[in-house]
Amino acid sequence: MNHLQQLIKKISIKSSTKILMVVLDGLGGVLSPETGKSELESASIPNLDALARKSHCGLIIPVERGITPGSGPAHLSLFGYDPVEYDIGRGVLEALGIGFPLEKDDLACRANFATWDGNVITDRRAGRIPTEKNRKLCSLLQENITEIENIQVIIRPGKGHRFVVIFRGRGLHANLTENDPQKEGHSPIAIKARDKESEFSGAIINKFILKFLDVEKKNPEEFSPANYVLMRGFSHCPDIPSMEEIYKLNSAAIATYPMYRGLAQLVGMDILSCKGESIEDEISTLKEQYDKFDFFYFHIKETDALGEDGNFKGKVQSLEKIDRYVPQLVDMKPDVLIITGDHSTPSVLKSHSWHPVPILIYSKFMPSHAVNGFSEKECLHGSLGIFHSSEIMSIAMANALKLAKYGA
Amino acid sequence: MNHLQQLIKKISIKSSTKILMVVLDGLGGVLSPETGKSELESASIPNLDALARKSHCGLIIPVERGITPGSGPAHLSLFGYDPVEYDIGRGVLEALGIGFPLEKDDLACRANFATWDGNVITDRRAGRIPTEKNRKLCSLLQENITEIENIQVIIRPGKGHRFVVIFRGRGLHANLTENDPQKEGHSPIAIKARDKESEFSGAIINKFILKFLDVEKKNPEEFSPANYVLMRGFSHCPDIPSMEEIYKLNSAAIATYPMYRGLAQLVGMDILSCKGESIEDEISTLKEQYDKFDFFYFHIKETDALGEDGNFKGKVQSLEKIDRYVPQLVDMKPDVLIITGDHSTPSVLKSHSWHPVPILIYSKFMPSHAVNGFSEKECLHGSLGIFHSSEIMSIAMANALKLAKYGA
Repeated sequence: MNHLQQLIKKISIKSSTKILMVVLDGLGGVLSPETGKSELESASIPNLDALARKSHCGLIIPVERGITPGSGPAHLSLFGYDPVEYDIGRGVLEALGIGFPLEKDDLACRANFATWDGNVITDRRAGRIPTEKNRKLCSLLQENITEIENIQVIIRPGKGHRFVVIFRGRGLHANLTENDPQKEGHSPIAIKARDKESEFSGAIINKFILKFLDVEKKNPEEFSPANYVLMRGFSHCPDIPSMEEIYKLNSAAIATYPMYRGLAQLVGMDILSCKGESIEDEISTLKEQYDKFDFFYFHIKETDALGEDGNFKGKVQSLEKIDRYVPQLVDMKPDVLIITGDHSTPSVLKSHSWHPVPILIYSKFMPSHAVNGFSEKECLHGSLGIFHSSEIMSIAMANALKLAKYGA
Repeated sequence: MNHLQQLIKKISIKSSTKILMVVLDGLGGVLSPETGKSELESASIPNLDALARKSHCGLIIPVERGITPGSGPAHLSLFGYDPVEYDIGRGVLEALGIGFPLEKDDLACRANFATWDGNVITDRRAGRIPTEKNRKLCSLLQENITEIENIQVIIRPGKGHRFVVIFRGRGLHANLTENDPQKEGHSPIAIKARDKESEFSGAIINKFILKFLDVEKKNPEEFSPANYVLMRGFSHCPDIPSMEEIYKLNSAAIATYPMYRGLAQLVGMDILSCKGESIEDEISTLKEQYDKFDFFYFHIKETDALGEDGNFKGKVQSLEKIDRYVPQLVDMKPDVLIITGDHSTPSVLKSHSWHPVPILIYSKFMPSHAVNGFSEKECLHGSLGIFHSSEIMSIAMANALKLAKYGA
C-alpha cells in the first residue's frame, strides 16, 4: 500500500454518497497528422463538453511519464493502487482474461501451443490454430491430466494458440524460468527454479510438459501441428488490500470483458452481470443495482479496440455514441461522476501509448477554472492539472465527502 | 537506481532511433525588474520559438521545488538519475572539473592553500594566490610526495588557491572529518576517521599534511603565503549504473568544459573531442560522429557563465547566437530533439537558482497543445506541464519508441 492509500485508509469515512467511475478504455489520443486534431477534438460530444465545463478536469499519467501501460497496471492505478508495487503476472492476467476465478494460492501460467520437430521449436504459435481446435485440445488434455503429485491441474482454452494452466494446491512458488526459447529453430528449455522454494513447482510443471507430450503421442492427428507447449508468466494473484479495506467502499464492477471483471475482482469489487454486452445493457445493470453500492467501476471497451485497429473515424464515432449516454449517467445523480480512460490508445499509433489521459471529475463543488470542452488540450489547463492516475481516488473521495481531515 | 530507472531498465529496447539532448547551461532566468521580461523573452530567437510551437514543452525541476542545484546533481538528473541517491562528493567534482581521469577506488579530495602562523589559520585562501603560483607549488609538492605507505599520491592544480589530491591504492575509505576550521583565527583540526574502515585513509592524509609542511619548510619563500593545506570533500566516484545498462543507449558527450565531460563519463558516455571550444566545433563533432551513437549529450556553457556574471544583455545575445545554430541541429533529423538547461542561472541573481527550467522535446508525435514560443512563461502552459528533470529520459525514450509496454 503506498503512502497515499495508507493515509486514506486512516481517514476514509463510510457514507452513503456515491461515486461512479466511467472508464472509456484507451480514451486518450494524439493529433491526426492530416487534421491536427485528436479523436476527442474531432468528435461531436456536446454532453461530455457540457459536463467538462462544470467539472474538475485534468490529465492523468497511468504509471509514470513516458511509460506505456498494459491494462493491468493502468486499471490498478485508476483504483488507487501503485501499479509497480502490485505486479500482475502474465499468467494471472491471462486467467483473469478468460474469466477464471483464481484462488489465493493458485499458480497461473500462460501456455502457447507450439510446433516441435522433436528437437527444435519450428513455430512458437503452432500456425495460430483456430480457437475451436484449441478448445478441443484443452478438453483432451484436461481429461487426461487432472492432478500431478496432489496438485490439481486446471486447463482452460484462450484464443488462437493461447491457453491457461492453473496449478492448485499447497507449496507452489512462482520463481521459475520459462521453457520458451523465444526464437524458432531453438530447443525448448527445461523449466528451472530460481530459488529453493520454487523447486517443487518446477518439478510439477516439467512433469506437466511430459504428460502433455504423452497425451499428444496418443493423439498425433488431433494435435498436429500443435504438438508442444510453451509455458511462461508463472504467477500468483498479488496480495492486494481490498477497496473496502482502504476506502471503506462497497464497490461493484460493470464490465463486459472478462479481463476487466477479473481486475475488479482482484481489488474486491462485486462483479455485476449484464444481459448483453452493449452500453445499454451496462446502464440497465447500473440502474438496477444503483442502490446497493457506493462505488461503481463502469467499463466501456470499444474505444480502445478501435484505437488499436488504427480506426480514427471509428473511435470518433464510438465517442459520439458514448456521448449520447452521458445524460443517463448524469441523471443517476452520483455525488461524484468520473469520466476518464485507463490509458491512451491513439489511432495514429495503433497501440496503447504513454500520453496522459483526459479526465473529468464532476461533483457539486465547482472547479476554480472552467475548461471549454472535453479533450486532451482543454484538460491540460483544467483545475486538476497533470497528475497520476493513482491520485484519482483521493480526489473522488474528497468530492464525495468521504475523507476526514488529516491532523488537527 | 530509482523506481523509474528500474522500470525503464526492464522495458527499454535497443533501437536505431536517435535522441539529441542539447543542454544550454543555466538556461532559465527570471524577469528583469526594468523590463519585466526574462532573458529568453528578451532574446530574438525565431528558430527556438518555431521549434517550441511544434514541441512538447514544459518546465523542469532539477532536484526538488525550491532547491538550487550544483552542476553535478543538475546533470545527473537530466540523465535520469536521482541526484540525491547518487551523491557526487566535493573531491570527486573538483577532480572531474580539472579533467582528471578518476579510477573506481580513488579517494579524491579538494585542497586549499591557506596561510598559517604556526598556530592558527590566518587566511583560509592564502590571499587567493594566482593560478600560476598554484601550479608551481603543486609541481614542487608532487616532486617530493609521490607515495605514502604504498598509496600513490597525485597532486593537481586547480584555479587560484584550489588544488586536488588523489590517493590511489587499496583500502581507502572516505568517512573522514576535515581539517578546515571554517573560520580564520582557529587552529586546523586533525583529520579523524568516523568509522573503523576509514582509519587507514585518515592516517595517510594526516601524513600527507606533515609531508606538505616538510616541503614547505624547505622552500619557505616559494610557498609564502600559501604555507598550509586545508583538505575536505573526501570522496569516491559514486557507483552509478551506466546509460547503457539502464537505457540500452550507446551514448556520447560533446562538451568543452572538463567538469561536464567528467559528469558524462561517470554515467558511461563516450567523450568526444572537438577541434576547439566554439559551438561550430561542437556541431562539427556531432556531424562527424552522428552515425556512431544513439544518444548525444550536447553541452553549451556560455549561457551559464554570462548569467553568473549578472550580464543580462550578454546572456540574451548568447541565446540569440545559439538560436542561429538550431536549424543545423534540426537538420540532423534526430528522432527526438531535447533543448533545455541543467538549471536556471538568472542574470538578476548572478548565480544558479531554484527556478524551473524551460524544456522542449521535439519528435514526430505532435503535442496536444501548442505554445507560442520558447520561454519560461510559454513552457508553463506546454503539454508536459511542470515535472522533474529525472523524468526527461522516460519521455524522450517513449517518443523515440525505445520503451516496451509495461505489464499486459
